[in-house]
Amino acid sequence: MTIFSKIIKGEIPSYKIAEDDYFLAFLDIHPLREGHVLVIPKKEIDQFFDLDENLLSRILVFAKPIAKSIERSFSCNRCGMAVVGLEVPHAHLHLLPIDHIDDLNFKRAKLKLSAEQFKRVQEKIVANLNVNV
Amino acid sequence: MTIFSKIIKGEIPSYKIAEDDYFLAFLDIHPLREGHVLVIPKKEIDQFFDLDENLLSRILVFAKPIAKSIERSFSCNRCGMAVVGLEVPHAHLHLLPIDHIDDLNFKRAKLKLSAEQFKRVQEKIVANLNVNV
Repeated sequence: MTIFSKIIKGEIPSYKIAEDDYFLAFLDIHPLREGHVLVIPKKEIDQFFDLDENLLSRILVFAKPIAKSIERSFSCNRCGMAVVGLEVPHAHLHLLPIDHIDDLNFKRAKLKLSAEQFKRVQEKIVANLNVNV
Repeated sequence: MTIFSKIIKGEIPSYKIAEDDYFLAFLDIHPLREGHVLVIPKKEIDQFFDLDENLLSRILVFAKPIAKSIERSFSCNRCGMAVVGLEVPHAHLHLLPIDHIDDLNFKRAKLKLSAEQFKRVQEKIVANLNVNV
């Protein structure tokens, strides 16, 4: 079972952002920036483009309000997105605030946040999820 | 009008990979690797997450066979994906073969390919688009 499946089952704690029948969104524990979120399918599928058409057609619709909330929650040019997936064999979409091309450079050193900082980031994004604009 | 809208209209030539009513896929003229494809909505929308739910639900279904073809066409671990969009104000999805995290680092020097090399890349991806596996 992947570490992400353990997060889905609640065996490993996470800072949850949103969830529906198909997907879970939670904070990346090794964030490139504050507001770095992972969106994963609940079904354990290694490669992103092996998701079936049903999941592929739903995942960005699920991700959109999260991306918008990230943009409202953190000073940034916009919310960027990436699928790399070379480390954990469970498809995942990165969403994170970006200002410069280097903000999406996964070779950069990751931030080390305290549990309190993660909680503040989580609360901000969740609070801004359902804002009407 | 964005440079991408000019490509859609055919006013600027491109190495086209696939097209439907909503999207166009063509080779990135400043590729990080051979097989670097851009997928854009035909509607001129600056930010990716401003695409409406109809387009968001279609774009990855459109991109999937292209991603699969990229994986078949070039030796790589898998097809990666990114949305950055800080340069051209017309939403676009990057698809490209990756082996290492650095393959998705947009700060790296871009490849300079000749027209012939671009054509070979285009022909490979198009030929592998409809392969049944």
